[in-house]
Amino acid sequence: MISARLGDRRNHWVLTLVCTDRPGIVHAVSGAIVAADGNITESQQFASADTGRFFMRLQIESSADRADFEAQLAPVAAELGLDWHLDEVGRPVRTLVLASTAGHCVNDLLYRRHAGQLNVDIPLVLSNHGTLRDLVDFYGVPFESLAVTDPASKAAFEARILAAVEEHDIELVVLARYMQILSPELCEALAGRAINIHHSFLPGFKGANPYRQAHARGVKLIGATAHFVTSDLDEGPIIEQNVVRVDHANAVSELVAIGQDEESRTLRQAVKWFADRRVLLDGARTIIFR
Amino acid sequence: MISARLGDRRNHWVLTLVCTDRPGIVHAVSGAIVAADGNITESQQFASADTGRFFMRLQIESSADRADFEAQLAPVAAELGLDWHLDEVGRPVRTLVLASTAGHCVNDLLYRRHAGQLNVDIPLVLSNHGTLRDLVDFYGVPFESLAVTDPASKAAFEARILAAVEEHDIELVVLARYMQILSPELCEALAGRAINIHHSFLPGFKGANPYRQAHARGVKLIGATAHFVTSDLDEGPIIEQNVVRVDHANAVSELVAIGQDEESRTLRQAVKWFADRRVLLDGARTIIFR
Amino acid sequence: MISARLGDRRNHWVLTLVCTDRPGIVHAVSGAIVAADGNITESQQFASADTGRFFMRLQIESSADRADFEAQLAPVAAELGLDWHLDEVGRPVRTLVLASTAGHCVNDLLYRRHAGQLNVDIPLVLSNHGTLRDLVDFYGVPFESLAVTDPASKAAFEARILAAVEEHDIELVVLARYMQILSPELCEALAGRAINIHHSFLPGFKGANPYRQAHARGVKLIGATAHFVTSDLDEGPIIEQNVVRVDHANAVSELVAIGQDEESRTLRQAVKWFADRRVLLDGARTIIFR
Amino acid sequence: MISARLGDRRNHWVLTLVCTDRPGIVHAVSGAIVAADGNITESQQFASADTGRFFMRLQIESSADRADFEAQLAPVAAELGLDWHLDEVGRPVRTLVLASTAGHCVNDLLYRRHAGQLNVDIPLVLSNHGTLRDLVDFYGVPFESLAVTDPASKAAFEARILAAVEEHDIELVVLARYMQILSPELCEALAGRAINIHHSFLPGFKGANPYRQAHARGVKLIGATAHFVTSDLDEGPIIEQNVVRVDHANAVSELVAIGQDEESRTLRQAVKWFADRRVLLDGARTIIFR
Repeated sequence: MISARLGDRRNHWVLTLVCTDRPGIVHAVSGAIVAADGNITESQQFASADTGRFFMRLQIESSADRADFEAQLAPVAAELGLDWHLDEVGRPVRTLVLASTAGHCVNDLLYRRHAGQLNVDIPLVLSNHGTLRDLVDFYGVPFESLAVTDPASKAAFEARILAAVEEHDIELVVLARYMQILSPELCEALAGRAINIHHSFLPGFKGANPYRQAHARGVKLIGATAHFVTSDLDEGPIIEQNVVRVDHANAVSELVAIGQDEESRTLRQAVKWFADRRVLLDGARTIIFR
Repeated sequence: MISARLGDRRNHWVLTLVCTDRPGIVHAVSGAIVAADGNITESQQFASADTGRFFMRLQIESSADRADFEAQLAPVAAELGLDWHLDEVGRPVRTLVLASTAGHCVNDLLYRRHAGQLNVDIPLVLSNHGTLRDLVDFYGVPFESLAVTDPASKAAFEARILAAVEEHDIELVVLARYMQILSPELCEALAGRAINIHHSFLPGFKGANPYRQAHARGVKLIGATAHFVTSDLDEGPIIEQNVVRVDHANAVSELVAIGQDEESRTLRQAVKWFADRRVLLDGARTIIFR
Repeated sequence: MISARLGDRRNHWVLTLVCTDRPGIVHAVSGAIVAADGNITESQQFASADTGRFFMRLQIESSADRADFEAQLAPVAAELGLDWHLDEVGRPVRTLVLASTAGHCVNDLLYRRHAGQLNVDIPLVLSNHGTLRDLVDFYGVPFESLAVTDPASKAAFEARILAAVEEHDIELVVLARYMQILSPELCEALAGRAINIHHSFLPGFKGANPYRQAHARGVKLIGATAHFVTSDLDEGPIIEQNVVRVDHANAVSELVAIGQDEESRTLRQAVKWFADRRVLLDGARTIIFR
Repeated sequence: MISARLGDRRNHWVLTLVCTDRPGIVHAVSGAIVAADGNITESQQFASADTGRFFMRLQIESSADRADFEAQLAPVAAELGLDWHLDEVGRPVRTLVLASTAGHCVNDLLYRRHAGQLNVDIPLVLSNHGTLRDLVDFYGVPFESLAVTDPASKAAFEARILAAVEEHDIELVVLARYMQILSPELCEALAGRAINIHHSFLPGFKGANPYRQAHARGVKLIGATAHFVTSDLDEGPIIEQNVVRVDHANAVSELVAIGQDEESRTLRQAVKWFADRRVLLDGARTIIFR
C-alpha cells in the first residue's frame, strides 16, 4: 500500500538478503514484515542457478522503528541463515571519490549529487593531481591532492585513502578515472565497496590506451564498463556497461571525447544503483535489481 | 529453489493476480503457495499509484496438480478480492493472425514460433488478400483469404474472425499489418486480447501513411508501437515501442523498409510477453513484467 | 591531403553552399578550390528530391587567405547561383544562452565549452530567474536575470535579447530550457539561428507537461527534441532527437529526471553541429552533415 | 541532379576508388564525370591518416554507356594511380552462402533477398549438414550438403566451395553461422570477399562458446560482429557490430536466443553494405560509406 495511514509516522526501509535457495523464504520474510506492520512497496528476487543462492531486495513502509523491525526479522534470519542488511530508503551513502586529472566523471557525479539525483554524501575528493581543485571547490566538497611519483608516495596515498575511509565512515570508494593501480592489499581492504570505471567495453581492450586499441582494431562501437575493484586488474564483477557507435573517420582523440560521455553515465549509473542498494554480488557476477 | 527434488514430478505454474492494494498480500499468497508445496522461482509486483491497484506475477514449481493448487489459492483469493489467473509455464497460447499483403511481421512470427522462440499455437492465418499463402503454407499453418471490398464483405470478414475465435478457442488475435480498421463491436468483443502493430512511434503520426508524415516533418528517429486494439483508433494501451535512427537522405520508401524491422521485432516482443503472461492492464496503461 | 606541406602556412576552411541542383556543381566548385591551392579534407553533399536543391559542405586546407579564396569562388558562385558561407574550421560561434530555473542543460553546455568540446563563445547567459547565477559564475560567464511577470516585463526581456544579440554579434541563441514562449516578432528576427530543446519526442506530446502526458499515455520510450525556433510552437525544423526506455513503474517525477539527460545531450549535440556548420535548412526539414 | 532529362536513357553507376592522398583528386575525377555527361547523385570520401590513402565512392547518373564512361576515366585513373571499380547501381552480387545447422541467419538473408531488400543473387547454399534443406528449398535456392567429419571430408568441402565460386562467378562468400574453420589457403583465396558472423562483440570472447564466456563474466551487453575472414581467426577487419542488453537472470540458453537476432541483423547489414559497394579495406580496418 503506497500511501501512509493518517496519524502514522511511516518509515521507509530497504531490506536486502542473501541465503541458500530453498522453499518458503518469501513466506517467512513476508511474515516478519507483516508482524512489523510493514507493507511491501517494491520487491525483487533472483535464484542463481550458478551458485544455488537466493537474493532478494525489498522496500517496505512500516510504522516500526529499526529495533522493532530487526526484532521481527532476527528469528527468521537465524532460521534461514540470511545474510541481510536493513537501511533507510534514500539515506545518502558516504562516498570517497578518487580522481586524477580528467574531470568528466567527477563533474558528473558532483553535479548530480547537487541536483538531488544521487543518494551520496561526498566528504572528500582525493586526487594525485591538483587539476580538479576549482571544480570540486565549486560544489563545496573538500579536495585534497597528494602527488604519486614513486613507491613511497604511492604508499602514502593509499594510507591516506584508508585513513579517509576510517575517518569519514566511508561505505563506497569511487575511482572516477583515478589513473593509478591500487595495491592488492588495498583492493582486499575495499572488496565489494570500490567501483572503478574502465574506458572500454570489457573484456575487450583491457589495460592502458583502450581507445588507441579500439582505433587500431577498427571496432564500430566503443564503450565503458563500471566494475568492482579487485586485485585482478580489469576483471572485477561488472556492474554496468554502455556502448556508442563510432566509425572509420573517428581519430583516437575523437574516440576519447566520445567515450567520456559513456564513462560518465556508466559510472554514475553504477554509483546510483550501489547507493540504492540494488547491487548484490554472486561470485564473479553481480545481481542488479534495477 | 530451482532444481526439483528427486522423485517429485514438479509442475511449473505461472500465477498472475490483481487486487486493491493493501498490506499482507504477499504473505497471504506466499502462504497458499507454501501450503501447495510450491517454490517461487520468479516474482514481480507493482502497486499503481494511479489506480490504487496491486499487480503480481509469480512462477512457481510445485508437486501439486491444478485442483490442489487452486484449492489452496481459493480462500486467499476470496479474502483479498483477487482477480487471478493460473496457467502452466510454456503452454502455447492459441493465436489467430490477421494479415493483408505485407509479409514481414507474419514471416517473423512464423519463423520464431517454428524456431521455438514464441509460445504460441497458430491454428489459422486469416487475410483479406491471397499474397501470403505460400509463405504461410511453408510453415504448415492453415491460411484463408477473404476479399474485403465493401461493407458487406467487411462484415463477412469480421464474422469469420469471430467464428475462428470460437472454433479454435483463440486467446490472442494478432493484427500483423492487417490494414483494415476493426468495427467497434469487434474491438469490444476482443478487448484485452487483440494486439496491433502501428508503424510509427505513437502518439506521433497516427492514422495512415505515418512514414510519409515522418519524412515531411523531418524526424530523426522513426519507430513502431505494439498496442492493444480499442475502438479508439491508435489509442489503445501501449505494450512495446522501438525506434531507429534515420536521416535527411532517407526517402519515404527507405523509411518504410527501415521501419519494417522495428515493426517485426516490436510486434514479436509484445506477442512473446503476452504469451508468457507478462502483460497486465492498468486502465489505459500496461504493466509489463519483463 | 591531410598533412600540410613544409613551409606553407595552411588555413583550414569550412565551406557550405546551397543551389538549385544541376550537373557539374562538384567539378566547378572543386576547380575553384584547386585554383586556391586547396585540398578537400572532408566533403558531404545531398540533393533534395523534395525541393530540387543541392547542398554541400566541404572542409578545405589551403595556403590562400580569405580574400584570395573568395576571389576564386566568386565567379563560380555567380554562375551557379550559390548561396554560400566560408568560415574558419573551429572558429567559436558567438552564442547567447537563455535559461530559466532548470540547470541541467546550462551546466552541460558550460561544462563542455570549458572542456573544449564545443566550439562556442558564450558572452552572456540571460535568465528570467536568478537561480543559476552561481553555476554560471563558476564558469566565468556573465549572467543577467530579468523577471518576466507580465506583458511589459516580457517585452523588456525580449528587447534585452535583441540588444544582446546586437551588442555581442550573436550568431546563435540557445533556449536551454527557457520556459517562456517567444513572440512571433522575435522568432522572425532570430529565424534559423535560435535552437530550442523540447522535453518530448516531437511530434508527440507538444505543449506543456509532456512527461505527465507520457505517463498518462503509458509510452515505453520518452525523448527530447532539439529544433529551430519558429512562431509555430514546437513545429520548427528538427535538428536532433533521442529517446530512452522507461516502464510502468516510473512516476512522472522519475520521467522528468530520466528525461533531463536526454535533453542535455540532445541540445548539446544540436549546438555542436550548428557550431561546426553541419546544419542546413531545406524547407521545414534540416540537412545534417554529421 | 536526380531526375533524368527527357529523351535520355540514363544509366546509374557506382564508382569506388582508392589512391594515395594528394590535392586535386575530386576535381580530376569530377571532370571525367562531366565529360561522360554524368551527374553525381551521391558522394563520400575519406582520407586515412593511418595509411595516407584516399577513398571515394560516387553514384553517378549518365547517358554514357560503360565503354564511354571508362574511356573518360582511364586517363585520370592512370595519372592519379587509381585502384577503381565501376558497377551498375543495384546489380545483384553473386553470393555463395555457407551454413551448418542454425537457420536464423540463412532465413534472414533469404527472406530479405526475397523481399527485395538485399542486392544479392544466391545461386547456392552449401552446408555441412542437411538441416536447412527445407527452408532453403522454400525460397527456391539450390541447396547442397556435404558432411565434414575428418580432414579428408573437410578438404572435399573446401574444394567444393572453390569449385562453386568458379562455376557461379561468385563475388561474395557469406559464412552464415558456418561452424567450421576455413583453412589458411581458402582464407587466402577468398581474401576481401568472404564475410563471417561471430557471435560476440569482438575482440571480447573470441573462439568457441562466447555466450558461455559472456555469462561467466557477467557482462551486461552481448553482441555480434560481422568481419572479413582472414586466416587469423576472429581477427579479420570488422564491418559491423551490434549489442543488446542482458542481465543476471539470463541463462546461457537465453543469451543464445537473444544473441541470434543481433547476429542476423549484423550479418545482413554487412552483406547489404558489401553488395552496395559501401565497404572498402584500409589495412586491418574497413571504411564504411553508409
